[in-house]
Amino acid sequence: MSKRAVVLVSGGLDSATVLAMADRDGYECFGLSVGYGQRHSAELMAAERVCASLGCEQHRTIHIDLAAFGGSALTDESIAVPQAPTEGIPVTYVPARNTVFLSLALAWAEVLEAFDIFVGVNAVDYSGYPDCRPEFISSFESMANLATKAGVEGRKLSIRAPLINLSKAEIIKQGAALGVDYGLTVSCYQATESGAACGVCDSCRLRRAGFVEAGVPDPTEYVTN
Amino acid sequence: MSKRAVVLVSGGLDSATVLAMADRDGYECFGLSVGYGQRHSAELMAAERVCASLGCEQHRTIHIDLAAFGGSALTDESIAVPQAPTEGIPVTYVPARNTVFLSLALAWAEVLEAFDIFVGVNAVDYSGYPDCRPEFISSFESMANLATKAGVEGRKLSIRAPLINLSKAEIIKQGAALGVDYGLTVSCYQATESGAACGVCDSCRLRRAGFVEAGVPDPTEYVTN
Repeated sequence: MSKRAVVLVSGGLDSATVLAMADRDGYECFGLSVGYGQRHSAELMAAERVCASLGCEQHRTIHIDLAAFGGSALTDESIAVPQAPTEGIPVTYVPARNTVFLSLALAWAEVLEAFDIFVGVNAVDYSGYPDCRPEFISSFESMANLATKAGVEGRKLSIRAPLINLSKAEIIKQGAALGVDYGLTVSCYQATESGAACGVCDSCRLRRAGFVEAGVPDPTEYVTN
Repeated sequence: MSKRAVVLVSGGLDSATVLAMADRDGYECFGLSVGYGQRHSAELMAAERVCASLGCEQHRTIHIDLAAFGGSALTDESIAVPQAPTEGIPVTYVPARNTVFLSLALAWAEVLEAFDIFVGVNAVDYSGYPDCRPEFISSFESMANLATKAGVEGRKLSIRAPLINLSKAEIIKQGAALGVDYGLTVSCYQATESGAACGVCDSCRLRRAGFVEAGVPDPTEYVTN
């Protein structure tokens, strides 16, 4: 049996790249997406396309209503998505999102007897979220090994974040080399239902600049231009 | 403003006791229950009753389909709930359940600006689940402080597990002294819709023996006797 991995796939550029990397490294990939009440549900359709195009063994979308807690522009219609960079932790931060996502991935990994979880967090060209930092990932991994049968039985579970130290341009270059079709992905915080990007939110700005810097043609469809 | 706490309330005996303890300690309590595809949904109705009877400021039930991952007798109809003690980690273990629950509590705590999360895990009279051990709780707390704004901003977030070193009998004695009405709670892994307990599963056995040892009258309604 080839080694299995659970890969968190959001439908965005980063996680598509991570999936291609896990596939290259010989993992049998199980793609996990989370519908969490996000405004930009075009993401979830993109995740489905990305998993199909990169040969996931299975893809599951699990739904959980983080919007019930509020507190983020990504889940709360009454908080506007900023159109320009802001100071500190931005309002697009979804409380404990990566902790919740990784916990779900951990649950599935345990059932699948997978000992690797891949996640596309990135601490370089990112939005300043606390749960994208390397020290968070490392701490989650320690916790995960105490939380599960794997740990009790002496198997080591790894949280793999291969993008953590890459710039957006480096991510795009590596993904393009692996044949990722970024036209399938959606990064925008307020994408239209068909997946067209606003071009002005934090996520669009980082993505756009990344393609320019990487010298890779940007396949994104922007609403404004 | 009084200090806020998120309290995980399952509807069982342990979490009801924890809620009474948090209330006694002066916290404004926000009860969180998780519908995770468990067989024994009578639990969730019990959680609602327990939160109402112990004066929670708010009670929310969030739904997430852990049954989609399978692998546990508590979420998978094709795996039988054992009627007698078993060796090792039992099939009633739900993969990563406490990690997922605590992550959701963390998300809500962050929105509420609560810095205390209470959970009824217990490492004495328990079922041998890896995510009930003190080292897991302590590791989750470290991770939580790196995962959230609280940690970035230098506030300390605490995971409080006041039952961790108590026997079932001690838990019952303390809860009874605090006025907990255990007749409202449901512990059974296969309770009927009305909340009647089977009397033979692991959870029933621990509960039943606890009342006997504590010398507290057992208000549980058992199907078999």
